[in-house]
This record gives sequence, C-alpha cells and structure tokens, in this order.
Amino acid sequence: MSVTAAKGFTAAGIAAGIKESGSPDLALVVNRGPRLAAAGVFTANRVKAAPVLWSQQVLRGGQVSAVVLNSGGANACTGPEGFQDTHATAEKAAQVLGHSAGEIAVASTGLIGVRLPMDKLLAGLDKAAVELSEHGGEKAAIAIKTTDTVHKTAVAQGDGWTVGGMAKGAGMLAPGLATMLVVLTTDADVDAPGLDAALRSATRQTFDRVDSDGCMSTNDTVLLLASGASGVTPEAAAFAETVRTVCDDLARQLIGDAEGASKDIRIEVVGAATEDDAVEVGRSIARNNLLKCAIHGEDPNWGRVLSAIGTTSAAFDPDRLNVAINGVWVCRNGSVGDDRDLVDMRYREVRITADLAEGTESAVIWANDLTADYVHENSAYSS
Amino acid sequence: MSVTAAKGFTAAGIAAGIKESGSPDLALVVNRGPRLAAAGVFTANRVKAAPVLWSQQVLRGGQVSAVVLNSGGANACTGPEGFQDTHATAEKAAQVLGHSAGEIAVASTGLIGVRLPMDKLLAGLDKAAVELSEHGGEKAAIAIKTTDTVHKTAVAQGDGWTVGGMAKGAGMLAPGLATMLVVLTTDADVDAPGLDAALRSATRQTFDRVDSDGCMSTNDTVLLLASGASGVTPEAAAFAETVRTVCDDLARQLIGDAEGASKDIRIEVVGAATEDDAVEVGRSIARNNLLKCAIHGEDPNWGRVLSAIGTTSAAFDPDRLNVAINGVWVCRNGSVGDDRDLVDMRYREVRITADLAEGTESAVIWANDLTADYVHENSAYSS
Repeated sequence: MSVTAAKGFTAAGIAAGIKESGSPDLALVVNRGPRLAAAGVFTANRVKAAPVLWSQQVLRGGQVSAVVLNSGGANACTGPEGFQDTHATAEKAAQVLGHSAGEIAVASTGLIGVRLPMDKLLAGLDKAAVELSEHGGEKAAIAIKTTDTVHKTAVAQGDGWTVGGMAKGAGMLAPGLATMLVVLTTDADVDAPGLDAALRSATRQTFDRVDSDGCMSTNDTVLLLASGASGVTPEAAAFAETVRTVCDDLARQLIGDAEGASKDIRIEVVGAATEDDAVEVGRSIARNNLLKCAIHGEDPNWGRVLSAIGTTSAAFDPDRLNVAINGVWVCRNGSVGDDRDLVDMRYREVRITADLAEGTESAVIWANDLTADYVHENSAYSS
Repeated sequence: MSVTAAKGFTAAGIAAGIKESGSPDLALVVNRGPRLAAAGVFTANRVKAAPVLWSQQVLRGGQVSAVVLNSGGANACTGPEGFQDTHATAEKAAQVLGHSAGEIAVASTGLIGVRLPMDKLLAGLDKAAVELSEHGGEKAAIAIKTTDTVHKTAVAQGDGWTVGGMAKGAGMLAPGLATMLVVLTTDADVDAPGLDAALRSATRQTFDRVDSDGCMSTNDTVLLLASGASGVTPEAAAFAETVRTVCDDLARQLIGDAEGASKDIRIEVVGAATEDDAVEVGRSIARNNLLKCAIHGEDPNWGRVLSAIGTTSAAFDPDRLNVAINGVWVCRNGSVGDDRDLVDMRYREVRITADLAEGTESAVIWANDLTADYVHENSAYSS
C-alpha cells in the first residue's frame, strides 16, 4: 500500500540505469490534490546533500506536488554542479508532470561524493511518469532501496482518512535523523502547519530515537504530503498519533533490517530527572561499541552499560543505578544484582532497562548490535 | 627499564592467582625516595571503580610511596564491599612495606562487576614484596596486561635525570582517558604541584587524544611518581616535555596494540578556528564506525569523513572543507578532489588530514579501524 494507500496519490518505481546492477533506482510520488500541503524534516548534519538543500527550500512554501527519489547516488559533496543536477531533476519532473519545479521535492541516497548520471535520471523521469498509478506504492518503495534487504511500508487508518508511507535505510542510522528517506502521505485535509506539527512530534519520538550505528547521514529526508482527498479534517491529536504510529512502524522496520545486525536492542531509560537526560543516556548506551559487541555475543555485560551511563551529564548517583537485561535486574544500586546466568538472550530482540533512580521521566532508543557482518558490509565495498 | 629506569624505584610483577590462566596479575611499584612526590590523572567517567576513588583520595596528599596494580578484575561496580577490598589491599601493602596506607595508590583492570579474590591478592602482596628489585620494571609491566598482546614501556632521559613508565590498555581506549593503567616514575627532584602540571599537560595532548573505540573506562589511572634520587631539579618546561615524550610513546603503543585493529589512523585536523574545534572534529572522525570500517577495507571513503565533520559544532563552511588521505587531497572545497585511486592504503598507518579552512589551530587524534576481529574479541567472551 505504501504511499498510495491514501487517496489522491499516484506513484511509480522504475529502473533508470542509475544503479549499475540494473535494479530499480527511481521513484516518483505525485499528489493529485485537491490539497498540496506538505511538511518535511531533514538531517541535522551540517554537511547536507544537494537534494536536501533543494527540498528545504521547496518545503518553505508548504506545498509539494511531487517527490522524485533516487537510489544509486547520494548527490552529496558534489559542489555547485551537484546542486544544479538536483535543480535539473526538479525542472524535468515539473515539465513531465505539468507542475511547477518549486513544488517538487527531491531526495537521493547512495554513495557520497559522486555525481549522478543525469542523462539516465532525466530519461527515467519520462518513463516513471508513464507508469504512475494508484497502485504504484510498492514499486516506489522498492526503487529507493540501497543496502536494504526488504522494502519498508506502513499504513494506519483514521476515521475516514489514511496515513501511509515508505522508508529506506539500513546503515548510517542515527538520531537526527538516520540515512533514511521516508515519504508519508495522507488524504486527511490538513494544512502545512498542521502537518509540520504532527511530523515533528512523530519524528522526535521515532526516527530520532533510532541509533543503529551512531552515524549521521548527509541525506536524511522525511516528508509528509496531504492531498485532502478524503474531505475529512481530523482532530489534531488523533492525526498526530496516527502519523506517529506509521513512523514508529517504519522506524522499527529500519532497525530490523540494519546492516549486518543480528539483534535489535530496545533501550529504555527510566527514573530520569528529565526526558533529555533519558535520551542522552539511551544514546550513550546505544553507541557503546563494546556493549554492542557483548550483545552480539549474548553476554549480559551490564558493566558496559554502566560505563556508558557514566560518560553522560545526566543526573544520577552511581551507587543508585539499576540495570535489567531481558527483565533480569543484573545490576542493583550500582553493583552486582541478580544472577546474570538467568538472562536469556537467544532471541533477536534484547531489552535493556536502565533506571537512573532520579525521577519519573523515560525514553526508548532502538539500536543494533555490532557484528562482523556489519564490518564486512561497510569495508568490503564503498557505500 | 619501565618504571625502574629512574633511580629510587623498585618493582615486581608476579602471578597471584587472580587470573584463572595463571598468568602474571599483580604488580608492585615502590618509591624509595628520598622524595615521595606524586600526581595522578583519572578517568572522567562518572562511574568510577573503587581503586580510582581510593587513589584519588591518596593523591590529594601529593605523596605516594607505592602503587599496587592488579589485572584480572577491575573492582568496578562492586559497591561498598569493593571499596573495602581496595582499602584492605592498601593496608596489606602498607604492612608488608612498612609504609602508611594513606600513601599507597591502587589500580585495577579487568572485568567490571566482579569482586576480586582477596585471599589470593593479599597473599600475592607478600610474595611481590619479596621480589621487589631495581630490575623489576619489565615484570611489573607484564603483570598489568589484560588483552594486551605485548607489554608497554618507555624511557626518556633528561640532563642527569630520567622519566620511565609502563602502560596497559588494549580495548575501551577513548579520551578522558582510555582503559589504561599507566605508572610513570622519575628520579628528578620535582614537587607534587610540579608533577601535576607536567602530567596534566602531557596527558591532555597524548592519552586524551587516543580514541581507539570511543568507549571510556571506569578504571583509567595515570600516575607520576618522583623519587628525587638524581638530586637534579629540572627546568619545568624541559621536564614537562620529557614527560610528554614518554606519554606519547606509550600512547602510540596503546593504539598499535588495540584489540583486533589492523590500522592505526592518525587524524590531523588543521585550519581550525580553535584547538577545541580541532579536537571535537578529530574525535568525531575517530568515532565514526562507517569510516572505521572503510579504512579497514582500504577504501579512501572521504564522504564518511565529511559526514562526521558535519555532526560537530566546530566553525566551518561545508563548501570549503578539504580532506587528504595518505597525502592525496581526495576532497577539495567540500566536493570531489584528486583521484581517489591515487591513495595507497596498504600500510598499517593511515593519515587523514581534515582542513576546516577557518583558522590556524590544529590537533592530532589517534584511532583504530573497526574489524571483525574487534567484534570477535569483544563478543566471544566477557571482558
């Protein structure tokens, strides 16, 4: 269902020849209206790819009529020529669709520092426009894959309206955001400020709390487009919650398909004085390579959790920290707790609970283990 | 030579049975005076092992007559009982040596969250005291090894005085400091404030700029002991420079023996507006898992360098960044530079130069690549 689950959208995914493998590499998502409202959230990396710089400008107008996405090249660190390539992409899509280039967002993913084969990409847009369909959501989701092993889509229903979406992302998954391209669509009748509020709230609690490998991308883009085709204007809270549900679903799929991972680690920090403290501690745990190796080895090494907590500025007393792994409180009051041999770590999901014993705030961060396969995938060839 | 290169020191290293393997695991370093001045630098981790808490107290007095070091157990996250174990260790050493417990520093390394076998450790101190010798430096350096493949010692000569030292550390190497135990000794006649100034200046530019795997230990301890036995009081600058030389030598040995590493990565950040900016950028590059994998694969993936720089708050313009790998400027002005095929990465040392083009400050950070062997060493068993 993906981006065409909501009424008013068509999509396509084709092989334009950008990838040498001949796999699908170009996706087009078109909003047929009647509304063309949109919001976007982009990477916090200060080194931003050309399509991010372009799309940030487009989103300032609050209107997006179409999104062009390509895999096979990130168009990042490509200088003024790279920005011209993105501009030319939007112009070509505008011409093919009869839209204005200033309302066309562009997103790219792949290797940094390489120019895109523009002849293939522009010719591909002609082909993609012909293939646009109300059933094209799956093909679009497939065309944005890079090292993803599966394509990722999600849908949630409101009362007379729908939110759907697609995502790609497998490596370089980290807060703010994570090498991900995400397009969400809805037929709810919501204006651009309403979309922006719902999207920011949702990403803050979902994509921003996914930290597979601590690495922040130059290309991350999350877009939310509203067609208004359902004719229904939902209550703001219900809409925000539904957007959050779809983002959460996609974020979990990203973690579940992270490069080389064998474990999905759910890190819940509780008893924090503030939510910021909880998030800081969760991220520090999520990024500790030694702990990530231990989890891979199914070793409930809670000492590495404590040493990660100790590097943060969060409020806590080292002698009051408690840590549970898969429900067993292996560390109590900063010291040895229940028998670590009671911890069963055979399954893919591993739950770490860190209790700071300072307050009532909490946060959940998702991470992956560190494996030889991760090293292999990221050292054997450029990506 | 190690800690007994300087006059006025004896040392020993023995197998006390703390390690199940039967390898050496207990070291003793004794300052015979006439001076007993000392300074120390400890982990910045807020979760500190019992021996760190103890030795910080001891160092406040500025006098250390002996250091007890054990491998085979970190005595971290062991609660009040663990602190009592450290206290008992100092008391026993005081009794054996005829010193005051309040002048005996203790350092431990090994698994977190496990109590030490105190019967074996205390009995070992009797044995170690008998073995104390002016030639015992090498044995002491061997006894503090954990996953180190070689023991590490260094010596530098001043004008009539000497600075020598030993270090252990192989994993959890990161700024502030790095799972390391280091004991430096000198026969120069320097008081505690003079030692403190020289040691802080040296560690800031050496051990604090080693970032093998981004993980900060609970046990890091660097001690500098002066016996004054040479009768020479060196000029402060010359003394500080000699201490820095020994620290730099040991720091390089730590990086060269890091767990599972196949490359030593020298990251030099130049053109920074401030030294802090240079250090922040260097650390961000040093900790980027994707880049560390690429270096392992001998792939000059400069895009990953730029994406690491982009996560910092340092002053820079993305369009003016330059990056060289092994002398080839593969990125110029934030975009594609010289041919990456010119980069020769066959050797163990890899040099990355990141030019922020903002000023004249610089810093060097040392890191390692990320390898399947690192994952194996840190997942196959608890450490």
